[in-house]
Amino acid sequence: MDISKFIVNTRLSNTSPYYLQIASLIKAKIIDGSLAVGEKLPAERELAILFEVSRTTAINAYRDLEKDGYVSIKKGSGTYVRDRYSLVSNSTYEMPWPQLLRPYSEPSMASLMSELMVSNMLEDKISLDAGMPDPNYYPIDIFSNLHRDYLRRLDPRDFGHIPIHGYEPLRHTISEMLVSKGIKCHLDETIILSGSQQGLYLTGKVLIDPGDYVILQTPTYLGAIQSFQALGARVLNLPQREDFPFEILEDYLARYRPKLLYCIPTFRNPNGDVMRIEERKKLIQLAARYRLAILEDDPYSSFYYEDIPPLSLKAMDNYGGVIYLSTFSKILMPGLRVGYMVAHPSLIQRIVLEKQYVDLHSNNISQWLLDLFIKEGYLEEHLIKMCGIYKRRRNAMAEALNLSLASKLSFHIPVGGFYIWCSINENISSKKLLQEALKMGVSFIPGDAFYAAAGEDKEFRLCFSQHDEKVIVEGISRLEKAMGKLKKGQVSASKGHIKPII
Amino acid sequence: MDISKFIVNTRLSNTSPYYLQIASLIKAKIIDGSLAVGEKLPAERELAILFEVSRTTAINAYRDLEKDGYVSIKKGSGTYVRDRYSLVSNSTYEMPWPQLLRPYSEPSMASLMSELMVSNMLEDKISLDAGMPDPNYYPIDIFSNLHRDYLRRLDPRDFGHIPIHGYEPLRHTISEMLVSKGIKCHLDETIILSGSQQGLYLTGKVLIDPGDYVILQTPTYLGAIQSFQALGARVLNLPQREDFPFEILEDYLARYRPKLLYCIPTFRNPNGDVMRIEERKKLIQLAARYRLAILEDDPYSSFYYEDIPPLSLKAMDNYGGVIYLSTFSKILMPGLRVGYMVAHPSLIQRIVLEKQYVDLHSNNISQWLLDLFIKEGYLEEHLIKMCGIYKRRRNAMAEALNLSLASKLSFHIPVGGFYIWCSINENISSKKLLQEALKMGVSFIPGDAFYAAAGEDKEFRLCFSQHDEKVIVEGISRLEKAMGKLKKGQVSASKGHIKPII
Repeated sequence: MDISKFIVNTRLSNTSPYYLQIASLIKAKIIDGSLAVGEKLPAERELAILFEVSRTTAINAYRDLEKDGYVSIKKGSGTYVRDRYSLVSNSTYEMPWPQLLRPYSEPSMASLMSELMVSNMLEDKISLDAGMPDPNYYPIDIFSNLHRDYLRRLDPRDFGHIPIHGYEPLRHTISEMLVSKGIKCHLDETIILSGSQQGLYLTGKVLIDPGDYVILQTPTYLGAIQSFQALGARVLNLPQREDFPFEILEDYLARYRPKLLYCIPTFRNPNGDVMRIEERKKLIQLAARYRLAILEDDPYSSFYYEDIPPLSLKAMDNYGGVIYLSTFSKILMPGLRVGYMVAHPSLIQRIVLEKQYVDLHSNNISQWLLDLFIKEGYLEEHLIKMCGIYKRRRNAMAEALNLSLASKLSFHIPVGGFYIWCSINENISSKKLLQEALKMGVSFIPGDAFYAAAGEDKEFRLCFSQHDEKVIVEGISRLEKAMGKLKKGQVSASKGHIKPII
Repeated sequence: MDISKFIVNTRLSNTSPYYLQIASLIKAKIIDGSLAVGEKLPAERELAILFEVSRTTAINAYRDLEKDGYVSIKKGSGTYVRDRYSLVSNSTYEMPWPQLLRPYSEPSMASLMSELMVSNMLEDKISLDAGMPDPNYYPIDIFSNLHRDYLRRLDPRDFGHIPIHGYEPLRHTISEMLVSKGIKCHLDETIILSGSQQGLYLTGKVLIDPGDYVILQTPTYLGAIQSFQALGARVLNLPQREDFPFEILEDYLARYRPKLLYCIPTFRNPNGDVMRIEERKKLIQLAARYRLAILEDDPYSSFYYEDIPPLSLKAMDNYGGVIYLSTFSKILMPGLRVGYMVAHPSLIQRIVLEKQYVDLHSNNISQWLLDLFIKEGYLEEHLIKMCGIYKRRRNAMAEALNLSLASKLSFHIPVGGFYIWCSINENISSKKLLQEALKMGVSFIPGDAFYAAAGEDKEFRLCFSQHDEKVIVEGISRLEKAMGKLKKGQVSASKGHIKPII
């Protein structure tokens, strides 16, 4: 059959492999019934011509569809739309799921984060996008050894249900660990979470009603923006400035009585910003006066490359309003899915009640192994090692940027964390640059992913944590080439067809 | 100081250790300010007299308070209320958390489940309450060996961020495993969850608006009742009968247009009930006609002690409306926190969007090890072994009940699962029996925990999975003694002081 009618005005983007995009297009047409069961699809060769891709890509697209049962590929005959539910024919009814589901706002925005998480698994490019630790340094062998060495001392019941708060030895270990950050907390002020994302979710869940105001220091972590927006919060922005914009904050406090201020005071994602110690003190004073709850997200403070960063807000919290959130995803590995929160016992008690609905309690194996890992001193060693590695990577990226892109980009060299935040000096949008950069084989995150409202179109984030110096230098060189192409106006033709990254 | 005024009308219950109850009472008075910082508390001896407990219990209560920083115990001087936030004195403000938190209904009900989860860790009794596999048979050594043996073949990126849907090899493995249950599913119809509780939560989240109707086949799993009620659903009960109450269901369908039917068709928690194959077929027909979504919870069907149970509803689903939910918590160990859902791709897509807010994705270590465990054939072996063990335990409990309590209780011997559901023949409430049973050192769950509304006061659930035959027989013998005491009217004195279990 002729499926060319479906691909009018369809342009494949560079953000995911072509074969997946083609498969997804055909899948949508099968699901909505445009392609009926039994229908013969174009030969692979025709499909390749239709989408202007290689024959291998066309073959892969059909294989992907076959894997999910949408088509059957019959050797020597062709590819046919398959009856996915062979039993469906017995029933004249089909469940109208789309009508049943509750309305959902901005699914495309919401899916960006998941795309970021898998993007570097899908493609063979230099990924300067997702902010993750380098998998080559995950201490997986130590975890395996701990699993073996401590098995005999394990009480099997520790692999049964445990309290919602988490594995008690780990809660103790974390509260001891936090003393070095100036945070003194009691056991009933701590809870283990399934990643710090869960802390964002649950905090929003217990505090925010639709229409409530939340203050964000922007640009900031995408996952936080999304969590609060999904709850119907109205977002107030504290813009980026050399100094902390206290007069704006105070105006917000007086005018809107916001429920919460979310911030990443140390090595902020995405711009590496650090709130100064005097600013922290003043913020706490102001927050105490207005009884403003502060959600302090602190995933990066262990990775400092110059001086030790200032004390956390929680360490200075003299009114019980700071909710401290952190995670082992950045300092160890995301797959542990272990984060934690330190906050007033009243809040923790309530978070516990909500968490029980979400997953009863977090994963025991991770918590048990992590506790051993910290107690045996491996975490300290690991952090020292990784600080050295990331510092060299930051230096390499900073040097490469200074050498080749200093005139075209403005950027700030951070004293910790994973990111260099750039701004394009010329009138070129970061999304346009990304499109060109992907062709050159390098990726980054355009700036508007870090804003709640209309984006700052010329900004973008580079992450230096995932690759070694040589690859980073090559990545920046590719970026320079992409910038060069844009200057020469070589991308003007594709204007109007640019698909949003998000 | 004299704290006796606080304990007027306070009676310690038997549901948790006395020292914790005393500590919690004093803690509440410190938090609400009735006991001021620096105040001296009664000597341990006085405290013991005040609460009519042993001196050890009083000491433990103070130690528990000290652990959490509420008091300091000064040798030779006494116990004093401590300033928990030494910095608080710098601020004249304290965060008014209770006013800030969103309203929460029935926290006492919600906390029952967490109490159940830890109750048998806290006490030295024969626990016939929480429905968990026997920790002595958790295959923790096999998991440790797999961790060691497969480490070299692991791609470290598998311990980074993975797609929200879960670890793809495990999704494949599960869909192959389900073929034996008659369920044929494609990859895009599956998602890995952080326990099946998360499946209940997310299903409710995407389908239910406050005021929507949900049908429950009662008595049923407490966690499901709570999840739906927390979302503001109105619950319609399908009562327990010899046959499935189709005429009631059809009336509900026509009258209320409910969003969802939740059921556990095979070896239902708490009563072991099995929906017959003709009933399943008829249910599917009716559901297809009314486009009713069915949430089929299936944690127990692998534990059958007679014939293989009927095909799952999902296996017969000819209209795409059945959401199949299962877990490895019962067949392996709860601490894995791995469950899964099989449903129409439209629903899965939406569940994925919600799950990303809740925890990004489930734990990688568990998923990786579990996949290996199944692929190496250990799960099959484990199930065969555990079926044998649980069958003997069921037989032992059934025999003991028949021998000693047949005249006093009505009960039904299940052909699978973990539970024997009992009803007291005489006019004695199950909570009253529990109070007496706890004194004898045996526990169970009173029946009203399994109903959405007013409870069936004379029913209760016994679980035979956690102990070996000898202990089970002893447990039933203790239960018989408790019944005997009640008959003799020995508990009438405490009437009026009975604290609810929940």
